[in-house]
Amino acid sequence: MKLKDIGEFGFIKKVTRGCLIRPQHVVKAVGDDAAAFVSRPGEVILLTTDLLVERIHFLRHATSGYNLGYKSLAVNLSDIAAMGGTAREAFISIAIPETCEVEYLEDLYEGVKSLAAEFEVNILGGDTTASKTDLIINIAVVGSAPENEILCRDTARPGDIVYSSGFLGDSKAGLHLILNHIPADSEAFRELLKAHLQPKPYLREGRFLARQKGVHAAIDVSDGLSSDLGHIAEQSRVGMRLYAENIPISHNLKQFCEQFNFDAPAYALSGGEDYTLAFTVSRDSAETIEKDYLNEFNMLIYRIGEITDSGRMELVCPDGQVKIVTSSGWDHFRK
Amino acid sequence: MKLKDIGEFGFIKKVTRGCLIRPQHVVKAVGDDAAAFVSRPGEVILLTTDLLVERIHFLRHATSGYNLGYKSLAVNLSDIAAMGGTAREAFISIAIPETCEVEYLEDLYEGVKSLAAEFEVNILGGDTTASKTDLIINIAVVGSAPENEILCRDTARPGDIVYSSGFLGDSKAGLHLILNHIPADSEAFRELLKAHLQPKPYLREGRFLARQKGVHAAIDVSDGLSSDLGHIAEQSRVGMRLYAENIPISHNLKQFCEQFNFDAPAYALSGGEDYTLAFTVSRDSAETIEKDYLNEFNMLIYRIGEITDSGRMELVCPDGQVKIVTSSGWDHFRK
Repeated sequence: MKLKDIGEFGFIKKVTRGCLIRPQHVVKAVGDDAAAFVSRPGEVILLTTDLLVERIHFLRHATSGYNLGYKSLAVNLSDIAAMGGTAREAFISIAIPETCEVEYLEDLYEGVKSLAAEFEVNILGGDTTASKTDLIINIAVVGSAPENEILCRDTARPGDIVYSSGFLGDSKAGLHLILNHIPADSEAFRELLKAHLQPKPYLREGRFLARQKGVHAAIDVSDGLSSDLGHIAEQSRVGMRLYAENIPISHNLKQFCEQFNFDAPAYALSGGEDYTLAFTVSRDSAETIEKDYLNEFNMLIYRIGEITDSGRMELVCPDGQVKIVTSSGWDHFRK
Repeated sequence: MKLKDIGEFGFIKKVTRGCLIRPQHVVKAVGDDAAAFVSRPGEVILLTTDLLVERIHFLRHATSGYNLGYKSLAVNLSDIAAMGGTAREAFISIAIPETCEVEYLEDLYEGVKSLAAEFEVNILGGDTTASKTDLIINIAVVGSAPENEILCRDTARPGDIVYSSGFLGDSKAGLHLILNHIPADSEAFRELLKAHLQPKPYLREGRFLARQKGVHAAIDVSDGLSSDLGHIAEQSRVGMRLYAENIPISHNLKQFCEQFNFDAPAYALSGGEDYTLAFTVSRDSAETIEKDYLNEFNMLIYRIGEITDSGRMELVCPDGQVKIVTSSGWDHFRK
């Protein structure tokens, strides 16, 4: 079905069904000049926005609408997670080329709505328009958190332990499979693909961490671990020492790196789009938090390094050699 | 200067100077995973977002960066105005093709910042990325209003007077000049151009109206008067009668229509991008509001029709004939 057959308002009617799933605190949902909702006393409002552009962030022919919608929301939820917030309302702007079928777009909204439902996020509005060539999606997500419980980038302190909430490099490996047309013919490869196509937003985990005494700084790993940790180091005006042997690497990535002859820790360090949380915890609180996190989520957090006062980002290699890490993450204009 | 010379983070540093102009209530501005700010007790949060795409909404070679930035924010502020809100925080997502010079983008941000400063709006974040072909801008604006003082589309009542806060059709005429390469060689034409390139957001006026007893429904005229008033009629489940002779037409548009042989009221009715407020007021309050508005802003509001219970949109022509109005506004997928 073509969009010109149902028109802009027909399309909006079609995709906005089931967007309001938590009507409490919502004064106006889709359909007016702006959405209106109330925040709760003592809570700060968090707002993040991410723009995904065809041929830059995704290849339309290589991704299902569902996965594209899912990921477009996931990357925003991940930002709210990294602030220690609860995600509440989402706003989807979409620019659609004529070549895009209504069915693909419905699938895309299904992907957004499915993830939104999992975290009780309303879709309260957005904008729908045309595009000449590329499909473009901008999602803005509003979250909230108690005012004294947000996690920032500029609050790491020397002596803190640096953690990752999950494996690193899996998403990059998934992308490698897609770009090189390698069939995902094993469970390991299918999981790498999933890490790339449907990244997990660590929302509950971020909220949990933000409530704990001793958790100082956090960021989500979107551009690559070394690049994102670089933001924490720079904004907190501290140094950092990472241990290559401690970078958490999944069995799936190990298998992948063996097969394609990559160095797994280097792969994980320079990855990107993992959307795990990288965070720092005061040494005193570290053990308690590791234990409580395990109790709460039945998952581990991984010590990958520590905050120093050196002002440098250092990587301790397996042979004991210390290398200076330069940010090897993604720069949209330099590549 | 090319973006690849300064990189993504160099660019962000360059354009984020002067973005925080009202630090009260802001907990985190640009630079973390999300912005954080607080709302005031008793106020609802308003959120609107608009996506502007090159070759759909603007031609890059035909508009200055400054005007493009100005208008990208103005259309969002207009949505907050139509809700009766105060605009507070803006978030700019931008996808930039390689062909776009840093100087053009700096000019674009100047346009945004200049309008933001006029209404004390902070720029608190966004997203910066690349694009293969088109320049793309999505702005999200957060506003606020006392909970019992927002203006919606579904609250018009039979008997209400329908108003426009300003002239209609000027923006369409300005676009006509641009698309037909007609030089703006008179004061009239320059003002029509300005109406198209730098539309006025009626923020103070919208807030004023939302405070008055008897103002029932409002919308901003973005797609065209007949189309936008159609939303009020449909959502309020009422009819409407407009009077062609009462459509407010500027001297500039009259001059333009005479010169190019257009029917001025028809031109104004089917215009678009005027960004005036169209609103409905109970008959009892109409005179008081006209007087108080004039006192407050030294500007008129224009009675253009009334709400009926017919369920139809009617236009009374100068000869007394009544026509049924069909929405002739913009549909992004039908044209």
